[in-house]
Amino acid sequence: DFERALEEVRPAFGTSVETLDSYLTHGIIPCGETFEHLRQTLAMLVQQVRNSDKTPLLSVILEGPVGSGKSALASSSARQSDFPFCKVISSETMAGYSEQAKASQIIKVFEDAYKSPLSVIILDDIERLLEYVAIGPRFSNTILQALLVLVKRMPPQGHKLLVIGTTSMSDVMESMGLNEVFNVSLHVPALRVDEMVKVLRHLDCFSVMDIPKAVDLLTTFSAKVVPMKKLLLWLEMARQDVSEGQKLSLTRWEQALRELS
Amino acid sequence: DFERALEEVRPAFGTSVETLDSYLTHGIIPCGETFEHLRQTLAMLVQQVRNSDKTPLLSVILEGPVGSGKSALASSSARQSDFPFCKVISSETMAGYSEQAKASQIIKVFEDAYKSPLSVIILDDIERLLEYVAIGPRFSNTILQALLVLVKRMPPQGHKLLVIGTTSMSDVMESMGLNEVFNVSLHVPALRVDEMVKVLRHLDCFSVMDIPKAVDLLTTFSAKVVPMKKLLLWLEMARQDVSEGQKLSLTRWEQALRELS
Amino acid sequence: DFERALEEVRPAFGTSVETLDSYLTHGIIPCGETFEHLRQTLAMLVQQVRNSDKTPLLSVILEGPVGSGKSALASSSARQSDFPFCKVISSETMAGYSEQAKASQIIKVFEDAYKSPLSVIILDDIERLLEYVAIGPRFSNTILQALLVLVKRMPPQGHKLLVIGTTSMSDVMESMGLNEVFNVSLHVPALRVDEMVKVLRHLDCFSVMDIPKAVDLLTTFSAKVVPMKKLLLWLEMARQDVSEGQKLSLTRWEQALRELS
Amino acid sequence: DFERALEEVRPAFGTSVETLDSYLTHGIIPCGETFEHLRQTLAMLVQQVRNSDKTPLLSVILEGPVGSGKSALASSSARQSDFPFCKVISSETMAGYSEQAKASQIIKVFEDAYKSPLSVIILDDIERLLEYVAIGPRFSNTILQALLVLVKRMPPQGHKLLVIGTTSMSDVMESMGLNEVFNVSLHVPALRVDEMVKVLRHLDCFSVMDIPKAVDLLTTFSAKVVPMKKLLLWLEMARQDVSEGQKLSLTRWEQALRELS
Amino acid sequence: DFERALEEVRPAFGTSVETLDSYLTHGIIPCGETFEHLRQTLAMLVQQVRNSDKTPLLSVILEGPVGSGKSALASSSARQSDFPFCKVISSETMAGYSEQAKASQIIKVFEDAYKSPLSVIILDDIERLLEYVAIGPRFSNTILQALLVLVKRMPPQGHKLLVIGTTSMSDVMESMGLNEVFNVSLHVPALRVDEMVKVLRHLDCFSVMDIPKAVDLLTTFSAKVVPMKKLLLWLEMARQDVSEGQKLSLTRWEQALRELS
Amino acid sequence: DFERALEEVRPAFGTSVETLDSYLTHGIIPCGETFEHLRQTLAMLVQQVRNSDKTPLLSVILEGPVGSGKSALASSSARQSDFPFCKVISSETMAGYSEQAKASQIIKVFEDAYKSPLSVIILDDIERLLEYVAIGPRFSNTILQALLVLVKRMPPQGHKLLVIGTTSMSDVMESMGLNEVFNVSLHVPALRVDEMVKVLRHLDCFSVMDIPKAVDLLTTFSAKVVPMKKLLLWLEMARQDVSEGQKLSLTRWEQALRELS
Ligand SMILES: Nc1ncnc2c1ncn2[C@@H]1O[C@H](COP(=O)(O)OP(=O)(O)OP(=O)(O)O)[C@@H](O)[C@H]1O
Ligand SMILES: Nc1ncnc2c1ncn2[C@@H]1O[C@H](COP(=O)(O)OP(=O)(O)OP(=O)(O)O)[C@@H](O)[C@H]1O
Ligand SMILES: Nc1ncnc2c1ncn2[C@@H]1O[C@H](COP(=O)(O)OP(=O)(O)OP(=O)(O)O)[C@@H](O)[C@H]1O
Ligand SMILES: Nc1ncnc2c1ncn2[C@@H]1O[C@H](COP(=O)(O)OP(=O)(O)OP(=O)(O)O)[C@@H](O)[C@H]1O
Ligand SMILES: Nc1ncnc2c1ncn2[C@@H]1O[C@H](COP(=O)(O)OP(=O)(O)OP(=O)(O)O)[C@@H](O)[C@H]1O
Ligand SMILES: Nc1ncnc2c1ncn2[C@@H]1O[C@H](COP(=O)(O)OP(=O)(O)OP(=O)(O)O)[C@@H](O)[C@H]1O
Ligand SMILES: [Mg+2]
Ligand SMILES: [Mg+2]
Ligand SMILES: [Mg+2]
Ligand SMILES: [Mg+2]
Ligand SMILES: [Mg+2]
Ligand SMILES: [Mg+2]
Repeated sequence: DFERALEEVRPAFGTSVETLDSYLTHGIIPCGETFEHLRQTLAMLVQQVRNSDKTPLLSVILEGPVGSGKSALASSSARQSDFPFCKVISSETMAGYSEQAKASQIIKVFEDAYKSPLSVIILDDIERLLEYVAIGPRFSNTILQALLVLVKRMPPQGHKLLVIGTTSMSDVMESMGLNEVFNVSLHVPALRVDEMVKVLRHLDCFSVMDIPKAVDLLTTFSAKVVPMKKLLLWLEMARQDVSEGQKLSLTRWEQALRELS
Repeated sequence: DFERALEEVRPAFGTSVETLDSYLTHGIIPCGETFEHLRQTLAMLVQQVRNSDKTPLLSVILEGPVGSGKSALASSSARQSDFPFCKVISSETMAGYSEQAKASQIIKVFEDAYKSPLSVIILDDIERLLEYVAIGPRFSNTILQALLVLVKRMPPQGHKLLVIGTTSMSDVMESMGLNEVFNVSLHVPALRVDEMVKVLRHLDCFSVMDIPKAVDLLTTFSAKVVPMKKLLLWLEMARQDVSEGQKLSLTRWEQALRELS
Repeated sequence: DFERALEEVRPAFGTSVETLDSYLTHGIIPCGETFEHLRQTLAMLVQQVRNSDKTPLLSVILEGPVGSGKSALASSSARQSDFPFCKVISSETMAGYSEQAKASQIIKVFEDAYKSPLSVIILDDIERLLEYVAIGPRFSNTILQALLVLVKRMPPQGHKLLVIGTTSMSDVMESMGLNEVFNVSLHVPALRVDEMVKVLRHLDCFSVMDIPKAVDLLTTFSAKVVPMKKLLLWLEMARQDVSEGQKLSLTRWEQALRELS
Repeated sequence: DFERALEEVRPAFGTSVETLDSYLTHGIIPCGETFEHLRQTLAMLVQQVRNSDKTPLLSVILEGPVGSGKSALASSSARQSDFPFCKVISSETMAGYSEQAKASQIIKVFEDAYKSPLSVIILDDIERLLEYVAIGPRFSNTILQALLVLVKRMPPQGHKLLVIGTTSMSDVMESMGLNEVFNVSLHVPALRVDEMVKVLRHLDCFSVMDIPKAVDLLTTFSAKVVPMKKLLLWLEMARQDVSEGQKLSLTRWEQALRELS
Repeated sequence: DFERALEEVRPAFGTSVETLDSYLTHGIIPCGETFEHLRQTLAMLVQQVRNSDKTPLLSVILEGPVGSGKSALASSSARQSDFPFCKVISSETMAGYSEQAKASQIIKVFEDAYKSPLSVIILDDIERLLEYVAIGPRFSNTILQALLVLVKRMPPQGHKLLVIGTTSMSDVMESMGLNEVFNVSLHVPALRVDEMVKVLRHLDCFSVMDIPKAVDLLTTFSAKVVPMKKLLLWLEMARQDVSEGQKLSLTRWEQALRELS
Repeated sequence: DFERALEEVRPAFGTSVETLDSYLTHGIIPCGETFEHLRQTLAMLVQQVRNSDKTPLLSVILEGPVGSGKSALASSSARQSDFPFCKVISSETMAGYSEQAKASQIIKVFEDAYKSPLSVIILDDIERLLEYVAIGPRFSNTILQALLVLVKRMPPQGHKLLVIGTTSMSDVMESMGLNEVFNVSLHVPALRVDEMVKVLRHLDCFSVMDIPKAVDLLTTFSAKVVPMKKLLLWLEMARQDVSEGQKLSLTRWEQALRELS
């Protein structure tokens, strides 16, 4: 039965690993305790779903500012779960679909998951899945109601499911009653100064003694905390004219920051 | 006639007992007078529908915070009624349906019930059936109007019906005129300290003398009152690493509470 | 012509007497001048439609709190009119219909009525016909506009029509301009203390000397005035364990009131 | 050409005289200068359309309280015009039509009128044509836009049209820009005391010396001014038990007023 | 190419001259510098479109009170342009069309214009084209978006287009961003006292020495400034009983003003 | 592979160069550092997309007042990129399309772009693509959601994309969360006095010593800063009567400014 179930969901599985990886273009750079702790909690939830009989369904929401690394964290946990069914539900693959079509698609993924003994579903960027916009506000109630039901619905007897949601609008989730349907809620923050230092060290793009000043410049042009994704993009842009293997100078760094912000 | 009626509704009956049980994964744990009283009142309503000729239709709404045990109470009363027709109307089986389709489905269950001499219908999580969301607010007026009519509509001569609704948004029900159509309204509260003690004793997962401190920790990390469902989930998560048959230590309990809230 | 007209509308007539009776499960219990006066005014309107040539169309709205007896009063007047065409327009027979379908159904009843020389149409629970809900507020403008026209539209030459509407939301009717289209408006109140005494005497369920105290208890647990329907339901529930022919004790009455409110 | 045009529109004409008469069940009772002046102004507009070459299109709106006699005035002027094409556009003949169907119907009447050398179109109860309701407010913009265009649109060369609108919501017309498209606006008031006296005298239902007291009673139970239609209805109801040929007594009159208001 | 283009658009041209003339029933009466200046500016824009290579598209909006002569000014400029393609886009020819149908029709006219080397398009009464109503406000965003694009869209290489819009709601145009897409905006005012004098002189309907008093009466009954169209209508109505060739007396004038306002 | 990809997208490419040029009717007139810097930053982004492997997707939004030159800047950068796929997404080519059709069209362009190894897509006048209007406000959420996803969606492995958006409503973009999905945001201002001097010098339409006074007149009639497009239009209109090769006099300039503003 387990074998047949695996077979049935394999094609779906195949496509999804690629998708998981597409959220990990820069990998997971070690950047301190906060992120380490997040990864451990996610790993613990994976274990609980695998082992406990009384919790065949667990759900966790990762919320934090744009670019803080929510999708990457969700994807890397899903990959490491080694669950036979892992799927990302993202609006990227449903651009232009009608509300109804999106809802059906989402429901289908859950129903596919119910066929596997162990599954992870990532609901990526929930506000985008909901077609949320602050003016109004407007959003798809059809999709919202589907999510409110699906995240709480028990998988059939003998099947287990972990749902990981990501969002950068936790207040909107709150006002929609969406965070109430998740069992656990975790905050993914932007990087603090000490964490940026760790990242820059790891990437080895500045000479070590320039790093404090580089971080200093960054927090001056931008804000006290900087999301991981923004930091990586700016580094990439600053590095453009720098030849392979050479370090980035503080002058070039300052110029790039000035131009882009 | 009674016999034929029974036959006609049997398949529906079959599926529904399973559904009723799915709301009772942790059974009904004895936890004090308040819940005992609720169960007795529900039992009395069941008896009245069975016996009285002048009240062929009774309706009761169970309202209380998320996870307080409303669905479990409704299901267990329905099971104990032994009525030939018991059915849960839940949005879980209608995910992705259109408003119209949901309304038709709900009407159909009532019309099936009218064929049985004695019936219980559970309207579980009414705000979800109504596709309610606080932003706006938005909800399906089609479904609301159907409910406003169905809960008050007399079954045909010689047939009897008990309707049990559950909701965690009694103020919303109020503003929609929905609580006015129910004959009786009962409040299902979250657990107070003494009730949590009773539950922990019953579950036997802490050593007896640790229980007061365990409850203390719980009310510190969470709130003064804790819904039954949340308590059971947290226990399950804390218990994960603990080997079968062993008690949960207060240290592990505190750590789990810290991680999850 | 009169004969043929009668034949044409007979089937409709047949079903409707049953419907009328379904609003009279407890009959009309004598309970004082106010209600007597209401019945007389309705009877007078019936006579005027029957007799006067200059008023082929009359319309009256009965408004009052939920359960005060509006539908029962309308039905009993319609029954006593002995008009060949009597029909109740109620949302109970149209659950799940679309707005358009409801409007068409309502229009059809009026057009059927125009074929009979003398007709009564009851528009029962107008706010429900309109699919009204206070949040928004929302309602069906299609149905409202149909009613605004139909209640004022003259039946064809030689045909006469009495329209009786019922509603528990007279302020909503006002703001919709609906009460303006009715020729007469009558208020159906909840029962005052002296009226409750009369009802309890008539029903003979308490020993006579207990009645004042029974009413006292009732107004303590509930409000100063109590709608007829609520009173009858509560008596029924309190009476459950009492064996046939025996009186209800004040202790049992108090207990029932405490449990249900 | 004129002859053929006449023929083409005759059937429409046929039905419409009946319709015009249906608004004149009580005829036009002489009741003083105000109403006389209104009728003369309307007659003058009819003449101008008939005679002047530079004004092939004229439009007038009659506004005033419910039941003041607007529809009757419009109908009687249309009848007296003797124009070959006279048509009432009323929501009574379009109950249950969709917005689109109503708009098409209205447009069709105007296009039929363009075929006749001389036409009158009555837009009766414009707020009802617009499906207006104060809550929201809601109304059919489709129909409104059609009216805004039609009332201003010139008939084809050599054809002439008088449009008479009636409404009891002149402020709503104002806010919709509808009164701006009418060339002339006339106010039709409720009856003042001296006018009521004239009506009662004409109807000869009280003995002459009772009339002042009868009007006095009326203004006490109702308001300082009373719309014509209300006065006629109340008289009819009071007169019910009075045998043919006999006068109405003040006692009976007072009783009827007390019962109905 | 030019020749073939002309042929292609000729039928459209044919119908439109008639339409242009229908806006000029009273011709253009000389009434002072303001209007003269308006006509010259319009003529200059026509010349620029004809001559300049760098401005193949020009757009001008005429805004002013109801009846001030906007449509007449636009039409007369279009006629005098002698451009092979002249078309009025007016809601009068689209009564009852759906939003979509209106938008398509409007787009079609622009696309027809692109086939002619030189074109004028009049967007008459833009608020009516937009189905605008102040309550809400409501309007067709479909049509608005089409206009926002069409008024700015360059005709194809070698083709030239002048767009003249008219509106009496310049504030609404403003809030919709519509006046921003027009290159030039011109105000068409109601007539001042000296301008009314000029018009009355030209029309020769009063004896010359009565004119100052006649204008005086007019500004007393109406307002300080009077739109051209209103003035012409009132003159027509006052003149009704006056036999051909005779002057209008001040008494008759005063009486007419009193009756109509 | 590169070759085949090129072939596949060639026709699309063909049409688009023309489109790009249609935004450059007046070319790019040198007018100072601000604009030079904008062009360099855009060129740098083009280079980064071409060269860097870690940034296969970059997006930049040009925001500034109406007519400041945003579309021209975007087009000229796209032209100079020499990328095999360059396409403008503009509402001009989609007038009258339904929301759905527009969204599909936009999605299609992105999917065509994904087939080319290097692509530029210009989202011109985003508020118009969104069918935005300030009253309400209203806009197409279907299109907005498509853009929110498309601008962030990575092209497939080995393909690279630069997205350039233009808008004159940066606050609206902000409130829709649209500026957050662009990596870089650049402000395109209206011309300051010194920049207008440069433009007038370049165009050589005034005699050199008249230029300061000409700019002075312009800022007096208009505002302190003037958008490039407005300046060019006014020059064109003033120049109309001036014969080829001759300079524009200050008198003519002043007169033109007076007439048009
Ligand atoms: N420790 C880390 N945690 C998370 N992401 C990391 C870490 N180190 C590197 N990354 C990289 O940072 C990027 C984080 O981007 P990601 O898309 O996950 O952010 P996000 O919060 O989901 O953004 P958005 O709010 O736009 O959805 C990824 O490319 C990922 O590979
Ligand atoms: N005495 C009790 N009363 C109710 N439920 C109990 C009791 N003892 C144990 N339980 C268990 O507690 C859980 C209560 O969850 P239930 O779904 O009924 O809550 P709910 O109030 O319906 O939650 P929600 O608001 O999410 O619908 C069930 O798993 C049930 O088996
Ligand atoms: N004098 C009376 N007048 C009215 N109803 C009476 C009277 N005596 C007994 N009854 C009974 O009381 C009940 C009144 O209920 P009814 O449905 O008419 O109330 P209602 O005002 O229409 O309620 P709702 O607001 O829910 O529509 C009926 O069962 C009727 O038989
Ligand atoms: N002088 C009069 N003017 C108008 N109506 C009169 C007059 N005398 C008698 N009537 C009668 O009064 C009644 C007036 O009713 P009518 O329907 O015209 O009023 P209304 O203002 O149109 O009402 P509503 O606001 O309901 O449409 C008619 O039956 C008409 O025959
Ligand atoms: N100098 C003038 N300028 C404009 N119109 C004139 C002039 N002299 C006479 N007229 C006449 O005045 C009338 C002006 O009406 P027109 O329909 O153009 O006004 P409008 O401003 O478009 O009105 P609306 O706001 O109702 O659309 C026309 O009949 C036209 O022939
Ligand atoms: N340095 C310059 N930068 C930009 N545009 C210039 C420059 N020099 C000349 N132009 C010309 O100015 C005009 C700018 O108009 P463009 O349509 O690009 O403005 P826009 O900001 O996109 O306007 P809109 O807000 O209406 O979309 C073009 O015709 C362009 O050829
Ligand atoms: Mg993400
Ligand atoms: Mg529940
Ligand atoms: Mg009722
Ligand atoms: Mg009327
Ligand atoms: Mg006009
Ligand atoms: Mg632009």
